[in-house]
Amino acid sequence: MKKSGRLTVVGIGPGAAEQMTFEAVRAMEESDVIIGYHVYVDLVRDMFPDKEMLSTPMRREAERCEMAIREAAAGKDVAFICSGDSGVYGMAGLLLEMTDKYEREQKAPLSQEERIEVRVIAGVTAALSGAARLGAPLIHDFAVISLSDLMTPRSLIEKRLRAAGEADFAVVIYNPSSRKRADYLARACDILLESRSPDTVCGTVRSIGREGETKEICTLKELRNRQVDMFTTVFIGNSSTRRIGGRMVTLRGYEAERE
Amino acid sequence: MKKSGRLTVVGIGPGAAEQMTFEAVRAMEESDVIIGYHVYVDLVRDMFPDKEMLSTPMRREAERCEMAIREAAAGKDVAFICSGDSGVYGMAGLLLEMTDKYEREQKAPLSQEERIEVRVIAGVTAALSGAARLGAPLIHDFAVISLSDLMTPRSLIEKRLRAAGEADFAVVIYNPSSRKRADYLARACDILLESRSPDTVCGTVRSIGREGETKEICTLKELRNRQVDMFTTVFIGNSSTRRIGGRMVTLRGYEAERE
Repeated sequence: MKKSGRLTVVGIGPGAAEQMTFEAVRAMEESDVIIGYHVYVDLVRDMFPDKEMLSTPMRREAERCEMAIREAAAGKDVAFICSGDSGVYGMAGLLLEMTDKYEREQKAPLSQEERIEVRVIAGVTAALSGAARLGAPLIHDFAVISLSDLMTPRSLIEKRLRAAGEADFAVVIYNPSSRKRADYLARACDILLESRSPDTVCGTVRSIGREGETKEICTLKELRNRQVDMFTTVFIGNSSTRRIGGRMVTLRGYEAERE
Repeated sequence: MKKSGRLTVVGIGPGAAEQMTFEAVRAMEESDVIIGYHVYVDLVRDMFPDKEMLSTPMRREAERCEMAIREAAAGKDVAFICSGDSGVYGMAGLLLEMTDKYEREQKAPLSQEERIEVRVIAGVTAALSGAARLGAPLIHDFAVISLSDLMTPRSLIEKRLRAAGEADFAVVIYNPSSRKRADYLARACDILLESRSPDTVCGTVRSIGREGETKEICTLKELRNRQVDMFTTVFIGNSSTRRIGGRMVTLRGYEAERE
């Protein structure tokens, strides 16, 4: 076998080039091929017009990882891109897992040269980029929860929402909705309303850093009846979150009590 | 009064220039003055040798915000820098709060020109940069908790640890230790051990992205007896976290059950 290429999993942030890190751009620049979900590949195509790009449709995550491993094993340096951070609801986990499995399944143990070196480059996930747009909702302890039940039992999602509510975490919700899950955000709000005031300050940001970005600050009671889509990230304040000068700001611990 | 300058709160990431976003660097470039805690100001001094820089010592957060507001009110464009993300245990919250207070305390309402426009630019917080170094521990739902009780009652910190443990969140711990809190991480581990196996995969990363960076993957039982310092970020896996090919990887929901 020949020398394998490097496999770099790159979080490209919310989408705009200026929200990428220098490290992320350099990893793409230095790669022989950029691989990703086609929407993300399209986001970087203008930046690297001459670069080979490969993509697969949505939900074909395992296929996309196999493609990346195959290219790296053939000696190419691969930049495997994800939106936001590749380590938060991204592909870094599955790729590490499948690369390890690939190496263990080879007939003979791989030499150091043949092994695929996987490197993970962090990016700005929607929790951070969305929070910046709203103000400072995550300034203190917070919990990040996805409402997607494609791979997580709904009972566990609800247990986490309840626990985060009771322990007064600020909460960020990813994947708040889809065609099949139109009422999941309302249900999540109902669970949080068991322990949190209906006046709790909340916020939503849609299409962060992309064309047509919108945001809104509202109460938990209002959020319960909002229709949001899969491009929206939802922020639910804790008992110390305030609306200050049109922003959503969580005060830090004792500061809140001094008011 | 004269036209106020722009006040931009900038998360500069873990420290190395290449882990900054283009937007963060541009905000510093375009500013008249860079303000921050002296350690962070020193990190960017080489990048902007001719720029005016102002700093205050640790714990003087309110003073630092006042300084930034004063400079902006005097017409300067200010880049107010924080390590990691300014919105996660950073200064974005206090600055938004104090700017609003400053404006409300003026004798006459401020004109649009006199108002201070505060902009927040997200950066890569230690949860993300540390996770990338370890593998993919935060690939699914997670909770971020600081062990510092300077501004948060210890009972609330422990309540959050317990809730995160019981609801099987992966957990990131900021400020795991200090001279006065040498045993806090051990205590946090004990709380998590109430609901989580002693073999739970954990990881620590120290001085992320800076000279002398170190990392370790260990079990929760081992972590309980580790001495870490304030430059360390601690990751505690959930029931789906595995050690794969020398990395710390959290599997996603049902995938974990398929094993």
